[in-house]
Amino acid sequence: MMSESPDVLAVEVSRRCREKGVRLVLVEACTGGLVCARLTEVPGASSVVERGFIPYSNESKVEQLGVPLELLQVHGSVSAEAVEALAHAALEHSRADWAVAETGIAGPTGGTPLKPVGLAFLAVVRRGERAAVERHVFTGDRSDVRRAIADRAMALLLARLESES
Amino acid sequence: MMSESPDVLAVEVSRRCREKGVRLVLVEACTGGLVCARLTEVPGASSVVERGFIPYSNESKVEQLGVPLELLQVHGSVSAEAVEALAHAALEHSRADWAVAETGIAGPTGGTPLKPVGLAFLAVVRRGERAAVERHVFTGDRSDVRRAIADRAMALLLARLESES
Repeated sequence: MMSESPDVLAVEVSRRCREKGVRLVLVEACTGGLVCARLTEVPGASSVVERGFIPYSNESKVEQLGVPLELLQVHGSVSAEAVEALAHAALEHSRADWAVAETGIAGPTGGTPLKPVGLAFLAVVRRGERAAVERHVFTGDRSDVRRAIADRAMALLLARLESES
Repeated sequence: MMSESPDVLAVEVSRRCREKGVRLVLVEACTGGLVCARLTEVPGASSVVERGFIPYSNESKVEQLGVPLELLQVHGSVSAEAVEALAHAALEHSRADWAVAETGIAGPTGGTPLKPVGLAFLAVVRRGERAAVERHVFTGDRSDVRRAIADRAMALLLARLESES
């Protein structure tokens, strides 16, 4: 669950996006709406969040966003290839300027030796550019992992927003 | 923000859906992912949450779910007609058995005399049946209103699940 403490990351993402006139599309295949819920908790969110996709089932990644089924079958839905495809597809299926996507294994089940619980891939991409993709293995329980993915997604977006021209 | 206390509603929705073999699609035009984030926090969520839509901008309600623009223009995106259309469209655009949709004005801005801050419409519908639609005016700040909408959406779903044959 989210904490009651001020959501510094969500407030800072909202502030920077408003300053830059950036609207976001979120794809939350693991966190299931956590990032979008935190961003839309900040007043004025309608100028920052354009839309969000929660492709929780495997079918939905294909059907909501047009990600090729073959890509998911070859690399798995928790992979760098999948998250990059989801992020680019989100821009194609929205009016947003930047996309933030994540996919991961929150646990407690679903882990394998090659893809353990806590594994997550994040992608941030600006329309017309290449995606920044990160791989992490977060520790803790399901709630810890989801929180860590959401926090890192927002931090990665902030870093990319700062580094752009 | 969500509380740290056990999420009784989300756990109960998950338990009942698993018992009945029900998969859900969520449409969160106001809460922006809050219901889906709470449901997917519960272990085993992948058997309950099929997918979710966060149609936060007006365009996204048309583009993600195919709701007629004219309907939104005539009735407004915060209306009984809109939320019912969103719920039915979510079933058409998913593999879920039940849809839960909501739309509202969380504030602090965006209210009018006819549609005040706190106004929300909720819809719950089982595939092939008519939607149950509710209108509420919740009080409190943005966070209170969003929390109340999310709580009521889950309670309405539970009530409908219990009443079905």
